[in-house]
Amino acid sequence: MRRSERIIRVVRALQERPNQQISLSELAEEYGVAKSSLSEDVALIRDVLEADGAGTVVSLTGAGGGVLLRPRVPERDRQLFFADMCQRLSDSSRLLPGGFLYMSDILGDASVLDMAGRLFAERFQDSNANVVVTVETKGIPLACATAHYLNVPVVIVRRDHKVTDGAALTAHYVSGSERRIQTMSISKRALPPEARVLIVDDFMKAGATAKGVSSLVKEFASSVVGTAVFVTTSEPTGKLVPSPVALFTVGQLEEENEIQVWAQTDWRV
Amino acid sequence: MRRSERIIRVVRALQERPNQQISLSELAEEYGVAKSSLSEDVALIRDVLEADGAGTVVSLTGAGGGVLLRPRVPERDRQLFFADMCQRLSDSSRLLPGGFLYMSDILGDASVLDMAGRLFAERFQDSNANVVVTVETKGIPLACATAHYLNVPVVIVRRDHKVTDGAALTAHYVSGSERRIQTMSISKRALPPEARVLIVDDFMKAGATAKGVSSLVKEFASSVVGTAVFVTTSEPTGKLVPSPVALFTVGQLEEENEIQVWAQTDWRV
Repeated sequence: MRRSERIIRVVRALQERPNQQISLSELAEEYGVAKSSLSEDVALIRDVLEADGAGTVVSLTGAGGGVLLRPRVPERDRQLFFADMCQRLSDSSRLLPGGFLYMSDILGDASVLDMAGRLFAERFQDSNANVVVTVETKGIPLACATAHYLNVPVVIVRRDHKVTDGAALTAHYVSGSERRIQTMSISKRALPPEARVLIVDDFMKAGATAKGVSSLVKEFASSVVGTAVFVTTSEPTGKLVPSPVALFTVGQLEEENEIQVWAQTDWRV
Repeated sequence: MRRSERIIRVVRALQERPNQQISLSELAEEYGVAKSSLSEDVALIRDVLEADGAGTVVSLTGAGGGVLLRPRVPERDRQLFFADMCQRLSDSSRLLPGGFLYMSDILGDASVLDMAGRLFAERFQDSNANVVVTVETKGIPLACATAHYLNVPVVIVRRDHKVTDGAALTAHYVSGSERRIQTMSISKRALPPEARVLIVDDFMKAGATAKGVSSLVKEFASSVVGTAVFVTTSEPTGKLVPSPVALFTVGQLEEENEIQVWAQTDWRV
């Protein structure tokens, strides 16, 4: 097999499943090539992806000589995405009665979801999260995209307990916007014990929902390692969960005003 | 730039966004290489992916000389996936009271979602679907994975109309399992006019939900081009929607019985 053919196969294997360990020994056997050749290919792929800011190829020690791809978003792509989103989000026809923001189109856009998922995965790849948790409904697509790039399962917290979830743990929380007691429930067997949870959601105002998820997760002897939201509001400045990460911040949502949108400027920490 | 470096970049561009047109002219300019060299690289990538059954690279005529990747699942990967899923789904601890099947873990598993999304996209890539529609909640991750590979938006039908959806169209349908009148609603501006809808859901018994979605979609002067579900039941044999495609079929779900599971055998049509 020619080197260029090997390279196509290795890039495909790495990219198809981000953050999933690939055994070079198994690949070598599958394609009938020397493992040392594959190692050289991986070194070149690593150099090219790093030069482009498009990912890091991590070599894992131990049996099999595994490698995995940690995706990154090239700086230029992120800036284009931020600029495009700020424009789309500030369209005044998005204002809904009661100071809500229409985002269903954006939260269903395949390229937006892909980019947001990659950005969240990049930001939290050192958090050791082993599960992404979201609350139904609008945050689910974002949570799925993030879980794909982190290669961890996604668990959906429900507003009410359905028979198809099996036994579930239910708790109450006080919603921020309506000041009402609400319930949320999580399937008992969906979340692994001692899970390290990344909360992903579409929108955060005070953070009451994320705080509710956090309390619920603690009932499973699990911990929250981070909170990522697509859009947060500038007010209130103090949120109910520690250090939430938001891609975008919107100003006061009032029917008479323009919508002010800022992208997170210091994305890379 | 060496050929192997170019190839890494072209494979990455193709794989990152399946079914999205990439301009070779733009790539050539970005990397300062000849477009003819990139065309040769694409030809080699096409040959390797086709030999592996991992995708088709389509060249588009017209301005820019675009190419796109139509992903496919290699036969062997599909068979391994089917065998693994049949085993996981037939685990008798999945039986829930009332003859329901616990699947939340599977429907949140990143590798299952990725594989199901690729299989649905492969199966419906000639359907001309330009939007994936699902009903909240459990089918959303599957719908998102499918929409990613088809590179189309995903629209979520809600059980009740929320303020954040903006103006919505609401209709009623009779649920199959409970024989009750239920409502479903879809955001008016989420679905494009004359949409060609692929319905994706996790589970189908009689198909009442899919039929409800189908009626709702028709109110938008749109049409349903296909219905894809993860699991269907062997009974009733006649479903309420034409030719639904299911990855898996389960037999009678009763607490005393074993769970019978069959994978779709004639996957490629």
